[in-house]
Amino acid sequence: MSASQAGASARPINEWTASEIARAVNDGTVTCEAVARACLDHIAAREPQVQAWHFLDPELVIAQAKALDRSGKRGPLQGVPFGIKDIIDSFDMPTEYGSPIYVGHRPRSDAACVALGRRAGGILMGKTVTTEFANVFPGKTRNPFDPTRTPGGSSSGSAAAVGDCMVPLSIGTQTTGSTIRPASFCGAFGYRPTHGDLRTVGVKEAAGSLDTLGLIARSIDDIALYRDVLLGATPEPIADLPRAPRIGFCRTHLWSTLEPTTQALLEQAARKLERAGATLVDVDLPKDFEEIETVHRAVSSFEFARNFTFEIDHHWEKISEKLRNGRLKHGLACTFDQYLAARNAAERLRAMLPQSFGDCDILFTAAATGEAPVGLESTGNAAPSAIWTTTHVPQATLPVFTGPNGLPIGAQVVARRNEDRKLFSASRWVYDKLMA
Amino acid sequence: MSASQAGASARPINEWTASEIARAVNDGTVTCEAVARACLDHIAAREPQVQAWHFLDPELVIAQAKALDRSGKRGPLQGVPFGIKDIIDSFDMPTEYGSPIYVGHRPRSDAACVALGRRAGGILMGKTVTTEFANVFPGKTRNPFDPTRTPGGSSSGSAAAVGDCMVPLSIGTQTTGSTIRPASFCGAFGYRPTHGDLRTVGVKEAAGSLDTLGLIARSIDDIALYRDVLLGATPEPIADLPRAPRIGFCRTHLWSTLEPTTQALLEQAARKLERAGATLVDVDLPKDFEEIETVHRAVSSFEFARNFTFEIDHHWEKISEKLRNGRLKHGLACTFDQYLAARNAAERLRAMLPQSFGDCDILFTAAATGEAPVGLESTGNAAPSAIWTTTHVPQATLPVFTGPNGLPIGAQVVARRNEDRKLFSASRWVYDKLMA
Repeated sequence: MSASQAGASARPINEWTASEIARAVNDGTVTCEAVARACLDHIAAREPQVQAWHFLDPELVIAQAKALDRSGKRGPLQGVPFGIKDIIDSFDMPTEYGSPIYVGHRPRSDAACVALGRRAGGILMGKTVTTEFANVFPGKTRNPFDPTRTPGGSSSGSAAAVGDCMVPLSIGTQTTGSTIRPASFCGAFGYRPTHGDLRTVGVKEAAGSLDTLGLIARSIDDIALYRDVLLGATPEPIADLPRAPRIGFCRTHLWSTLEPTTQALLEQAARKLERAGATLVDVDLPKDFEEIETVHRAVSSFEFARNFTFEIDHHWEKISEKLRNGRLKHGLACTFDQYLAARNAAERLRAMLPQSFGDCDILFTAAATGEAPVGLESTGNAAPSAIWTTTHVPQATLPVFTGPNGLPIGAQVVARRNEDRKLFSASRWVYDKLMA
Repeated sequence: MSASQAGASARPINEWTASEIARAVNDGTVTCEAVARACLDHIAAREPQVQAWHFLDPELVIAQAKALDRSGKRGPLQGVPFGIKDIIDSFDMPTEYGSPIYVGHRPRSDAACVALGRRAGGILMGKTVTTEFANVFPGKTRNPFDPTRTPGGSSSGSAAAVGDCMVPLSIGTQTTGSTIRPASFCGAFGYRPTHGDLRTVGVKEAAGSLDTLGLIARSIDDIALYRDVLLGATPEPIADLPRAPRIGFCRTHLWSTLEPTTQALLEQAARKLERAGATLVDVDLPKDFEEIETVHRAVSSFEFARNFTFEIDHHWEKISEKLRNGRLKHGLACTFDQYLAARNAAERLRAMLPQSFGDCDILFTAAATGEAPVGLESTGNAAPSAIWTTTHVPQATLPVFTGPNGLPIGAQVVARRNEDRKLFSASRWVYDKLMA
């Protein structure tokens, strides 16, 4: 038994990481059914408070687990329960997109990411709560650390379920900050890949030129494992950095919008990383980046408003006021010429970013303005993520801080486009040093 | 009555363009029902030979037409029947993706492009035949000009239905050459937009980084009108060019693969355009473009093989041998690193293309190697389109040539990325001069 397995065995199974579960199942020391039951038991105890799940059928979960046990197969996610945001199709469970328009909707097939997760031996636990169409009108989920607070959105249930140890892995999506922010609020690792890497077939599109999947887990190694599975690749462990990283501390034009505690935590963390051997340099993005939220809003709203033409024309009265008067109103008023200007501006910003990285390996920046805010009406401020979403670069939030109310706050690490593996190596280094 | 309306009235309604139909309906000189019946009658006569339709319910068509007549609304496509490729979702008709896996599949909603077409007053006529999942295994459709020949693919039925005057408009898709080639074979105008402009929500994805909608019509004005509708924009007529265009004659590295007649037709056309006032210059793409089919194949196969994980794992035996041993085998063997290398190469080629345009307004090139080949087993060679698909630029095929067997061949016009309106202006100029 390895040290990490000994460590895993000492904790309840529902707290194990995906890597620990898959190893134990593949070694024959635990059954898929036992794993599933441990997670289901924890969900039964906690779901009344957290409400992370839009659909969960324990019998269906146990049936999957038993079939896996019978199969004798070994896979990189063997026996690992995972949740998927309810804008992601599943053939054996309803998919309702967080909207009354789609009550009872049963897709014919699994989204590519779901099918790839099952192929790897994963157990689809259920559908996690999403805001309405992954926009801002909230679902029922509460922050697992404080039920009076939002879990963040739009991947609300995905983040809460992982943060609460109901499942070790979940899939969300991100168009603005919909994975990074809720993962930060719920004390989990969140990852948004380089745009275009992970297939979004079977995911209800919000704005395709910005949408990606988002992965949420309780270790950066699990994130890397999950990504390989979703690429259809043979998983490879995260490589160690060849040397301590060169880190660009990127406060961005949003610095003044962060809570003072968050500013202080980031500053202290930067000094701690420096003491641990990293080279820290201040990175200021060009002034052009100050327009990025406006650019992001025009691109996403234009695409969103056209993507939802059917829902607008057939079910207007079932769309929330918040969505009608927000994203849709803005998007329907946005002309194609305005969209094109914004899309071109986004491309220019993308092209400028590598220069800002300079010789840094990664950037270090805020994942959210602070702890999850009180109240369930708003899912919080997505701006700190929108910069990186718009520029198509990979980003991760690491659960390293505790805020003034004892709630988690993440620190964000950003890498260059296509350098997702380097993001993981650097994230693990940063996490280990900050938690040391 | 305008001259064009007088011209329209002299022809059977099923031969009218979309613009002519919408004008007549909005003017009250013809009803939507009369238009629908004219098209249905022609389909009834010709469908046994052409077999363009995978699903067509005349009662549903007439019901839509009557509802439009009762509504008293006016729209840019008022009363215009349109067909959609059967990989595009419709809420009131089955959508089977050209695969036995999806027999009887009924999507819950319309694809964005369908809903936008209906919002503009269009009548969804039915679902046109697609190859299996828009790949190469053919459907039942035959070339409307010669039933022993392929209509091209993968938008086989969409091109045949428009070429045969069953409907004035149809929507296909293109991942390699799936709109331009069948439009060329079927004597229609075909258009592939700048990648990312027209929303693909509700369209079964083949390879998202290359997929676009493709529009097929019998006039370039109809194409421009249809595009505006699908952008959710107020339609604007095509502007005249400010002066005769500067045209780059781009033979490409594929020149020797074209049939000698096609080469001769293109050379003669170039001289004719020159005589009409255009400036013609030879444009040679850099040698790097010779790898573009390899690059395209790696990108599309990698994405395709992951997108179809559910179908592979649940319905392998219902997938054609052609798809299993072609795209899927290649895609499953393609590693993520190979994919990334190809995607990066595609980006480099995209970045190089504007330089090749030099000061040309458009490029003039082959749409297909020649007439539609005899036989229904293959849908023909897509290579002449793949160059432009991979580089994300807008392209159009114009039905200007007749081949040695009396069958149509298109000439292709290509514009810079985001210059789709210029493509239309130049296409009309080129078409008018070549047909003069």
